[in-house]
Amino acid sequence: MSHEIDTRLAAQGISLPTPASPAANYVAFVIEGGLLTISGQLPMEGGAIAVKGRLGAGVALEDGQRAARLCAINILAQAQAALGDLGRIRRCVRLGGFVASTPDFTDQHKVINGASDLIAGILGDVGKHARAAVGVASLPLDAAVEVEALFAIG
Amino acid sequence: MSHEIDTRLAAQGISLPTPASPAANYVAFVIEGGLLTISGQLPMEGGAIAVKGRLGAGVALEDGQRAARLCAINILAQAQAALGDLGRIRRCVRLGGFVASTPDFTDQHKVINGASDLIAGILGDVGKHARAAVGVASLPLDAAVEVEALFAIG
Amino acid sequence: MSHEIDTRLAAQGISLPTPASPAANYVAFVIEGGLLTISGQLPMEGGAIAVKGRLGAGVALEDGQRAARLCAINILAQAQAALGDLGRIRRCVRLGGFVASTPDFTDQHKVINGASDLIAGILGDVGKHARAAVGVASLPLDAAVEVEALFAIG
Repeated sequence: MSHEIDTRLAAQGISLPTPASPAANYVAFVIEGGLLTISGQLPMEGGAIAVKGRLGAGVALEDGQRAARLCAINILAQAQAALGDLGRIRRCVRLGGFVASTPDFTDQHKVINGASDLIAGILGDVGKHARAAVGVASLPLDAAVEVEALFAIG
Repeated sequence: MSHEIDTRLAAQGISLPTPASPAANYVAFVIEGGLLTISGQLPMEGGAIAVKGRLGAGVALEDGQRAARLCAINILAQAQAALGDLGRIRRCVRLGGFVASTPDFTDQHKVINGASDLIAGILGDVGKHARAAVGVASLPLDAAVEVEALFAIG
Repeated sequence: MSHEIDTRLAAQGISLPTPASPAANYVAFVIEGGLLTISGQLPMEGGAIAVKGRLGAGVALEDGQRAARLCAINILAQAQAALGDLGRIRRCVRLGGFVASTPDFTDQHKVINGASDLIAGILGDVGKHARAAVGVASLPLDAAVEVEALFAIG
């Protein structure tokens, strides 16, 4: 399994970044009772927010999808740091997707597909998850998208 | 138990619809570790969003409550598809309720009562759940309400 | 452990309030499968919302942080009512933080630190949690902040 995951990451040209560790009273992930809970991840790339602003106000759908994909890559990077081996993931249970949106932007589901496609593309069937996708007023550091995750682990 | 649930559904004139299956890399529900996680449901009725727009901008409180009730009916339809028998539900643990809102609309709790009342009305005491109710900028397909759910199952 | 928690509460001058019980078809908390899920708490103090309005429109960062801290105190009050003894908490798994925000307010993480700092300050290492922090259009009763929580219990 783990080898397959590495192969898919390589096929998509993805090398998982060193994940950000919050310098605060919260943490990037918690393992408890067979569940791995990962804090909301922003579209960080090379240490900076790669996609800023709101959908419907200057951020195009494709940019939003790229932001969601980056959030998902950061989720996998946190999972790798938490578990040592992504092959320990038994199932991606849920993604919570938040899209910074104007009131008239109503394609949040298409934006969050950028995260869903990445997770399922890398993890295969165990990557098929339940999710919520909603449009929010704004996000930390002016990020266009934030995605949190829950995994069942073996 | 299951018979009681059927009786309550009939008494409210509800026949559970065939639930929507996402044609994407996510799924409508995940069963894992004794928990049933259901993706955010929209107020679909007869294959279309029944209540569109925002609370505070043309959508009345009663319409919002009806939207939340429809989301809850779709949650039960997904649970029925997942479990075969709603009697397998041991507890509705949590509802996450998102209400498309203008900044000055502050009755999200009353809107989401439309979902809470339906779930507790049909499931009885096992339907009494924890929840969050918040006002968001906008929702997929211009839905007025989205509700996700977590159930403990036997 | 419990004695330590009491000492830390006293050191911060906090006496946990009698928590609000919703008069509705939902409940303030659910215990199921070793998990305690707590409904979204508002910044209630003395029976009223202490901090109203939106960040970016009249509510200063410090007021938002105070609101988040109050939400966290109410979370602990609910946990105390649920468990009898906060020493039964094995881990704070997740906080979900919602900040009523204008589109140009992007410091939701700093606001929710008010809740994270309180939980970790009182519970110690078991209080270090995963979290999501997002900016929403508006919240019930015009509250500036809402925070929900998930705990693993022993």
